[in-house]
Amino acid sequence: MSSSYGENIRLTIFGQSHSPAIGVTIEGLPAGEEIDLEALQRFLARRAPGQNAWSTARREADEPEFVSGLTGSVTCGAPLTALIRNGDTRSKDYSLLARLPRPGHADYTAFVKYGEHRDYAGGGHFSGRLTAPLCLAGGICLQLLAREGIHVISRIAQIGPVCDRGELLASTAEKPFPVVDDEQGEAMRAVIAAAKAEGDSVGGIVECAVLGLPAGLGDPMFDGMENRIARIVFGIPAVKGLEFGAGFSLAAMRGSEANDAFAVRDGRVVTETNHCGGILGGITDGMPLVFRAAFKPTPSIAKEQRSVDLLTLEEKALVIEGRHDPCIVPRAVPVVEAAAAIAVYDALLEQRKDAR
Amino acid sequence: MSSSYGENIRLTIFGQSHSPAIGVTIEGLPAGEEIDLEALQRFLARRAPGQNAWSTARREADEPEFVSGLTGSVTCGAPLTALIRNGDTRSKDYSLLARLPRPGHADYTAFVKYGEHRDYAGGGHFSGRLTAPLCLAGGICLQLLAREGIHVISRIAQIGPVCDRGELLASTAEKPFPVVDDEQGEAMRAVIAAAKAEGDSVGGIVECAVLGLPAGLGDPMFDGMENRIARIVFGIPAVKGLEFGAGFSLAAMRGSEANDAFAVRDGRVVTETNHCGGILGGITDGMPLVFRAAFKPTPSIAKEQRSVDLLTLEEKALVIEGRHDPCIVPRAVPVVEAAAAIAVYDALLEQRKDAR
Amino acid sequence: MSSSYGENIRLTIFGQSHSPAIGVTIEGLPAGEEIDLEALQRFLARRAPGQNAWSTARREADEPEFVSGLTGSVTCGAPLTALIRNGDTRSKDYSLLARLPRPGHADYTAFVKYGEHRDYAGGGHFSGRLTAPLCLAGGICLQLLAREGIHVISRIAQIGPVCDRGELLASTAEKPFPVVDDEQGEAMRAVIAAAKAEGDSVGGIVECAVLGLPAGLGDPMFDGMENRIARIVFGIPAVKGLEFGAGFSLAAMRGSEANDAFAVRDGRVVTETNHCGGILGGITDGMPLVFRAAFKPTPSIAKEQRSVDLLTLEEKALVIEGRHDPCIVPRAVPVVEAAAAIAVYDALLEQRKDAR
Amino acid sequence: MSSSYGENIRLTIFGQSHSPAIGVTIEGLPAGEEIDLEALQRFLARRAPGQNAWSTARREADEPEFVSGLTGSVTCGAPLTALIRNGDTRSKDYSLLARLPRPGHADYTAFVKYGEHRDYAGGGHFSGRLTAPLCLAGGICLQLLAREGIHVISRIAQIGPVCDRGELLASTAEKPFPVVDDEQGEAMRAVIAAAKAEGDSVGGIVECAVLGLPAGLGDPMFDGMENRIARIVFGIPAVKGLEFGAGFSLAAMRGSEANDAFAVRDGRVVTETNHCGGILGGITDGMPLVFRAAFKPTPSIAKEQRSVDLLTLEEKALVIEGRHDPCIVPRAVPVVEAAAAIAVYDALLEQRKDAR
Repeated sequence: MSSSYGENIRLTIFGQSHSPAIGVTIEGLPAGEEIDLEALQRFLARRAPGQNAWSTARREADEPEFVSGLTGSVTCGAPLTALIRNGDTRSKDYSLLARLPRPGHADYTAFVKYGEHRDYAGGGHFSGRLTAPLCLAGGICLQLLAREGIHVISRIAQIGPVCDRGELLASTAEKPFPVVDDEQGEAMRAVIAAAKAEGDSVGGIVECAVLGLPAGLGDPMFDGMENRIARIVFGIPAVKGLEFGAGFSLAAMRGSEANDAFAVRDGRVVTETNHCGGILGGITDGMPLVFRAAFKPTPSIAKEQRSVDLLTLEEKALVIEGRHDPCIVPRAVPVVEAAAAIAVYDALLEQRKDAR
Repeated sequence: MSSSYGENIRLTIFGQSHSPAIGVTIEGLPAGEEIDLEALQRFLARRAPGQNAWSTARREADEPEFVSGLTGSVTCGAPLTALIRNGDTRSKDYSLLARLPRPGHADYTAFVKYGEHRDYAGGGHFSGRLTAPLCLAGGICLQLLAREGIHVISRIAQIGPVCDRGELLASTAEKPFPVVDDEQGEAMRAVIAAAKAEGDSVGGIVECAVLGLPAGLGDPMFDGMENRIARIVFGIPAVKGLEFGAGFSLAAMRGSEANDAFAVRDGRVVTETNHCGGILGGITDGMPLVFRAAFKPTPSIAKEQRSVDLLTLEEKALVIEGRHDPCIVPRAVPVVEAAAAIAVYDALLEQRKDAR
Repeated sequence: MSSSYGENIRLTIFGQSHSPAIGVTIEGLPAGEEIDLEALQRFLARRAPGQNAWSTARREADEPEFVSGLTGSVTCGAPLTALIRNGDTRSKDYSLLARLPRPGHADYTAFVKYGEHRDYAGGGHFSGRLTAPLCLAGGICLQLLAREGIHVISRIAQIGPVCDRGELLASTAEKPFPVVDDEQGEAMRAVIAAAKAEGDSVGGIVECAVLGLPAGLGDPMFDGMENRIARIVFGIPAVKGLEFGAGFSLAAMRGSEANDAFAVRDGRVVTETNHCGGILGGITDGMPLVFRAAFKPTPSIAKEQRSVDLLTLEEKALVIEGRHDPCIVPRAVPVVEAAAAIAVYDALLEQRKDAR
Repeated sequence: MSSSYGENIRLTIFGQSHSPAIGVTIEGLPAGEEIDLEALQRFLARRAPGQNAWSTARREADEPEFVSGLTGSVTCGAPLTALIRNGDTRSKDYSLLARLPRPGHADYTAFVKYGEHRDYAGGGHFSGRLTAPLCLAGGICLQLLAREGIHVISRIAQIGPVCDRGELLASTAEKPFPVVDDEQGEAMRAVIAAAKAEGDSVGGIVECAVLGLPAGLGDPMFDGMENRIARIVFGIPAVKGLEFGAGFSLAAMRGSEANDAFAVRDGRVVTETNHCGGILGGITDGMPLVFRAAFKPTPSIAKEQRSVDLLTLEEKALVIEGRHDPCIVPRAVPVVEAAAAIAVYDALLEQRKDAR
């Protein structure tokens, strides 16, 4: 099912950009886990729109209402469902989309797949707004992982042509602009501002690392950690590329350079480098699990674009009005963390089946 | 389940490098489909080892035995199981691996996950040899897709530092070295030969395109075509990166550049460029579906490497003997096609449920 | 996942008896299907409590709120989520259950499985109240099936020792007490009244038939129509037995008697009898699909019962207060129809994949 | 997928009655489990045909060949595939079935579903012969369960009108005719012999109990132990009814009679009766899990029957030749045990995910 993820916990995301609510149902959460609702709210706030110069002006509290699965703030073992009401919607902004699909959006493909009854307002179920319930589920998983000493960190690795410098070793979540090298962050913000000034948008890359993982997580072939993470990360709108460890640069390497030599540190097997991103044969090796996701530029731009009237098949110019992020990458950072946390927590439960 | 893929057809790959046989069970194939067994054998031959200078000397016919699912050579609707016997195995080559994991291989993580009873000989279930049954399943899907006018083509896009030139517009399968620009292919072969001469190996990139797809294939969020292809392609050993359309280069683009404008050609909606790789919102838009998979260098190299004795935790030098491809990319080309064909055929069956 | 059902549509039921809401998320509904919300409400009313002498006095409107999946009242292709708010809850009635499990209920097993954090109020996620969202999903499927000429009918076949007479040939849904022979219905009501007067309860059997099914629905082995229906019907609380066609009485038959002879009527293959309940090899044969589900007596009775204090392991007497149906079978009739409709509709979508 | 079962282990059964082989692939078996191949062979022998007066004369060794998943006789963590070759097949016996479906068999529904390319010889994938790989998988699970103190026992509870007497408290597997009361067994055999003498067949009931189960196994709603067992038991050909504990007789009981009172024995919570069959709310309560499965009479009988020529739609008489069991119930006993073992072992692995 397209809006569901996971084998051991299973989350189903529902809602459209302009439906009464969006939300998530999570099955399989262990009973007896306290959810820190304030910490969850703070995590959601990192994704929420309307916070600063580089995000859309649409403002929403994104406060979840938990309608099932808790007794007080503790999981009770039954499916957990949480809703986020859709408040500040301006459906008239989208009325054109019934006929004129926006380039780079799912408007056209949704029309082909679902026909005239698709919900096109605000992108419907394809809207980036649906990453809010993903963060909700991921925020819960992050708390459960932290109790086992597992932490997910990330950063903006690239915006347009500007790359971050230094290594991702610690959380950047407290920074207003989550990069390691703030100078590069400044340059990235300039790139975003320039695009915005021109009614344009820009893409980027998010890097994510999972620290504290035990070795032995993940499964061979189609349920390796790469496969598990890929299935959820490509569910984030605008992601068009994904690489683990040294990723695409491995193509140009020799084996003698790419292979991570084994060594012993503090009585534990480690690798001296981490070109494999902490994953061998789909299974974690105990080193940080590292991946990078490439985001295309926000497709909604103010510049005039060429489209086609789906009813008459006439080519037409399209000018998109409304409020849009000139770059979604900063708001995507917690979404990537959420996705990683869900994939890892699901794999962690899987591993417990092997334990006796 | 880690060795299974697909929702509408479902294939399960079984076997270890040195078990009596490897094979695949495919459920959900429609009844009444003729399988061209000779064409299938020719497809398998493209992956088979021992064909030329750049692949391992291990020679195996890889002739499948169909034990169920056919009446004659026509599918009967019941699960199809095919075996490939493991003949030419030299288990003694691998005896060291019980203690000394090979860098870049799954030896260490398999030990952590499965303990002393893992089948380490030849890499066990993690062996690249398991791509033979994947090709078997994919070869069948390729035939079924061709009957609907859908074709999968691919090429080596990069070996080491050498990139192919030109666009992937037609099959390269008939070429001894599958690139568009044979001059670049010559340079790539030189790179492989140089690595081999030094007891080393080299990585590369395979590009794949699916032509003739209808618009409307794939599903939102976690069952988009990117997610579906990612889940199977990351199941191919050594794949560490995957990108669709312009992929990672989208990070540096502006939206006005990245968005593919809609137009009408021959009464059909098309896009003027294809930076999205034929996928919008997870759903095909009717343009070629294009992706690139990055392969790390073969981890088995002749050069001495550093490893750790898993029983004593002593650091030790490791020299791998036996026969290994200095570059697996050429043999991986049909494997990538097979993976793409399986993912696409599964999505095609999914789409039929919507039709009335 | 325990609260999910279906492969082609997939519904997930959430909520506890006393959580803010209960509800259902349905993935995979085709886009463009009008939902007749009034008809759906009427269907839900058949299950709703507080309607008459033989059901609990707890009164709830059970009016669903659709928070996603519709544009207006038409499905849009995205997951449909509907909530039913929990209003009239009296949690104090259940405070004892934290320590003293009710015989015949899931209180004890929920304690073992989920520990002290289970939601015991009103039975939590195990409450019969969770059949309301099942009816909601089933009511939608009934409408979709009716558009294809498929209808689900049912009746009370037995209450205590009293059996209905005659054959189930048409809907009994319009009757206040859904039996074929109203005289037997009168006797059944007397049985219920007698049990109620003694602070006791009584069980029964629901018979259900699906009419208008095409031949060819369902799949061999574990996805036959029996398996599909069993998996959902045993999800209805209190069901402890299930049989298809002549069911258990087939044990005492000869093959020459049990086998349904084939014949031709109006140019169509039919069977002259229907001991197999319309299913051969798991697949529908075009005759009515008939099954019977056995319900145990409502476990909540006013009579004193013996239980055990889970904290001290002392044996103790238990007197259950609160409002309970002396017989749940009348209200279970639409629930069984809903379950059948969901299973059949899911199988119908499966079958479409085979069509070209 | 129709021929697959299980979420934590997953088995896929393949093969047709007359294909080169039948077999099973099992994913998810823990690594390091010794399989006692001789004990497995003895278990398979209990199902094998040709052993005595009441089973078909077709003789087959049913010796499995393990082609993957083991190192020696120990599971290695990779998918286990085992084949049983089809030797003694007489395809000419079945040639008529291409046109004249046998009453009570899947011939007609397979024709509707799969068309002319179905494998009708010997019933194809619908043949009772496919219970051999089910027993193979179940026999392995029985060994794994025994290591945790869990045992599966069963008996013939009824043949035709003759019921066994006494309670099922211990294994009957060592008996030539597995009943508790051998005198009743004698009467049952007479019933079978009488049916055989008349060219007819007879049905029956198998009762099964799982002893030593921990409380807390199984999940609410659709993954309760009833649902899990139902999904696999209805996959055994000829099963048309299933009940747990007191089953259908609960319909006639009062709650005060049906409810199993809780008590404490040896410091452990028990129930004084077991009308619920050891399952409350889908979850085991620690008492024996008890169920009964009703088998219809073998549909293949020597007597002339009425059928329809599927090509001409003419009604025709059919006389089935070949060798058939006059009663499959005795051979079905180990099949029911196998099915129970698989369902229980899968639930046991599920439960481990909750443990920390």
